[in-house]
Amino acid sequence: MLTETESQQRVLRLQEMLREKGVHAALLIMPIDVFYFTGTRQNAILLIPADGDPVMLVRKSLSRARAESPIADIRPFCSSKEFASVFSHDLVSIGLTYDAVPVQQQSFYTRALPGRSFVDISMMVRELRSVKSPFEVELVRQSAAGLASVLADVPNFLKAGMREIDLAAEMEYRLRKAGHEGYVRMRAFNQEIFYGLAVSSGGVNGGFFDGPVTGKGLSSAAPHGASTDVIRVNEPVLLDYVGVFNGYMADMSRIFVIGKLDPELQQAFDLALDIQEMVRQAMKPGVICEELFLDAASMAEKGGFGSCFMGMPGEQAKFVGHGVGLELDELPVLAKGFAVPLQAGQVIAVEPKFVIAGKGVIGIENTFVVTEEGGLRMSDLPDAIVFLEA
Amino acid sequence: MLTETESQQRVLRLQEMLREKGVHAALLIMPIDVFYFTGTRQNAILLIPADGDPVMLVRKSLSRARAESPIADIRPFCSSKEFASVFSHDLVSIGLTYDAVPVQQQSFYTRALPGRSFVDISMMVRELRSVKSPFEVELVRQSAAGLASVLADVPNFLKAGMREIDLAAEMEYRLRKAGHEGYVRMRAFNQEIFYGLAVSSGGVNGGFFDGPVTGKGLSSAAPHGASTDVIRVNEPVLLDYVGVFNGYMADMSRIFVIGKLDPELQQAFDLALDIQEMVRQAMKPGVICEELFLDAASMAEKGGFGSCFMGMPGEQAKFVGHGVGLELDELPVLAKGFAVPLQAGQVIAVEPKFVIAGKGVIGIENTFVVTEEGGLRMSDLPDAIVFLEA
Repeated sequence: MLTETESQQRVLRLQEMLREKGVHAALLIMPIDVFYFTGTRQNAILLIPADGDPVMLVRKSLSRARAESPIADIRPFCSSKEFASVFSHDLVSIGLTYDAVPVQQQSFYTRALPGRSFVDISMMVRELRSVKSPFEVELVRQSAAGLASVLADVPNFLKAGMREIDLAAEMEYRLRKAGHEGYVRMRAFNQEIFYGLAVSSGGVNGGFFDGPVTGKGLSSAAPHGASTDVIRVNEPVLLDYVGVFNGYMADMSRIFVIGKLDPELQQAFDLALDIQEMVRQAMKPGVICEELFLDAASMAEKGGFGSCFMGMPGEQAKFVGHGVGLELDELPVLAKGFAVPLQAGQVIAVEPKFVIAGKGVIGIENTFVVTEEGGLRMSDLPDAIVFLEA
Repeated sequence: MLTETESQQRVLRLQEMLREKGVHAALLIMPIDVFYFTGTRQNAILLIPADGDPVMLVRKSLSRARAESPIADIRPFCSSKEFASVFSHDLVSIGLTYDAVPVQQQSFYTRALPGRSFVDISMMVRELRSVKSPFEVELVRQSAAGLASVLADVPNFLKAGMREIDLAAEMEYRLRKAGHEGYVRMRAFNQEIFYGLAVSSGGVNGGFFDGPVTGKGLSSAAPHGASTDVIRVNEPVLLDYVGVFNGYMADMSRIFVIGKLDPELQQAFDLALDIQEMVRQAMKPGVICEELFLDAASMAEKGGFGSCFMGMPGEQAKFVGHGVGLELDELPVLAKGFAVPLQAGQVIAVEPKFVIAGKGVIGIENTFVVTEEGGLRMSDLPDAIVFLEA
């Protein structure tokens, strides 16, 4: 439950950013943005003026929004005629998150608020949300614990001969009973994910997903994650799952092998651990995100696995880590072209991985918080490959 | 797998609609729209000129798009400078689906294509997609069969004392092993759903969801579906799930009771069956969608349950059925204000339900195809409440 203090601090930080950019108000309409400031995910929008108190307008459910949110001024959604009266006349420049707001929604609000000018505040909102409070970090830690407890249980249900989808079903069953909420929200256009990936040989497939691994999936309509391929002995099985509890995510990957592992894959795995440790030590405020990716790519290259780092040749992702929080693809990104400094409190999933044609997918992923001492792990689950008897 | 003939028929139908409206080309960028015409869900866009052959531009994965799609002209995504050359100069009026396309995407394409005018073709695309081919109806039938097989198994795992979330986990485990793809895609802004609803007392809660039932959910970040409430004897348990196989959906609800049911709830259930049968008989081409809702609401009123039809007082949904296909909220909607005729081949989930404060949620849902003989059921699973021994 979002406290009043926490909600107010988030609002105050956004108001500072609005004043800095000369924007008079933020009109937040993406559900998860509204949730961030209000603590309730109803069908609602939130007006935050650069100075003054926020106003939440709720279509459905008003009673639930009022029960869940510490926002003082919560009103039923008004007709488009009355709409302008909610906005003081001196609020001329109004910000919307154009990265995710559909054109029809933008049209509705620009028509309802004639004479105002609208600007894109996507990056402002995403930057604000990228820095987590201690309260949020604790929720990420709880999600990591929930996910880790199921990953630790994998040796009890992973068997040779089961299909990738059977393994996914076992994972998801246990996650759900532990309270996993299911929704793995993503912000990027054209991206979607269902829980995560349970892949063996099916992992070596190209795909739409903006990560190192897409998976074969179940059909051309769901070409992502587990397939009906059978899991065999002596091949790596990647479990890359997102824990989602109380809206907050932790993203982790572990490798399991029934039998023995090809020495080349073991070598690549050890290199992934080295890259993870290099990034972890460097995850301090002020360090440039892009440099962490370039350093990681350079280590992969020197280790002899440059051409399969973060994806198959031709489909290699240009990042080694991504922000997580209420969405899976938050800021910052440890990526090429992302030449901005890390900030204390940012939460980042670091995931050095290799996709080796004909052999499989291998690597590691853990979620860390940026601190003055480097990345702080959100879970103590051991990184080592788990070998099971064939 | 989408055949070339099926893909071409869909393209030809859209081209007719474009010419009718004087739009020179459709620029489809929503993944599921692209999938509908191409049979592949990659990171790709599709240009369909009103006359001529479609061109697909693929960001990732090109090889997978080519392997899966019967579209002849599939190219790698080009730079924004080269982009205009893909579009013949006589394509001046270009359609985008403004209901779902984010503003940043619209800006990208309008900048890349200077001198063109852009129009909203959301309704055109949604209307086209609402009429299913025999191939699509067969896929919906298969999804209904997959879902029905798990619903038929419920008496083997539903027990008093389990939590709603435990019941959800059991349902979803079996669905997943049967090949359920997980993604329950919705088009409406601000809506989302995870599999469906497994609710008992938690069902009597308001919420953001645009359906008769939202459920309590697990937290204020996921205020929808199953909660940690314990399922008790002598109360209705609603399982409202979406089957998704090969991208296509069937939506069904059934009621289970451990022990005995309050006579008022049984009465409401019988009324729901009568309403479903009225709607089913009337689901013929030419019948006005709105009238089916008004007739249903009138039956609910006459039966004494008007104030809790399709939701709690104050939060009642104004529909009794919704189109399903590749998305859960397709056209048509059997709703107030939807004064358009039904067309043969439309697939509609009909879901008369009642939310009775202090007692529970009760009702039925099945997916039907509109035919000259009325609604054709996609599954033969019996409608009756399933009573289990306490």
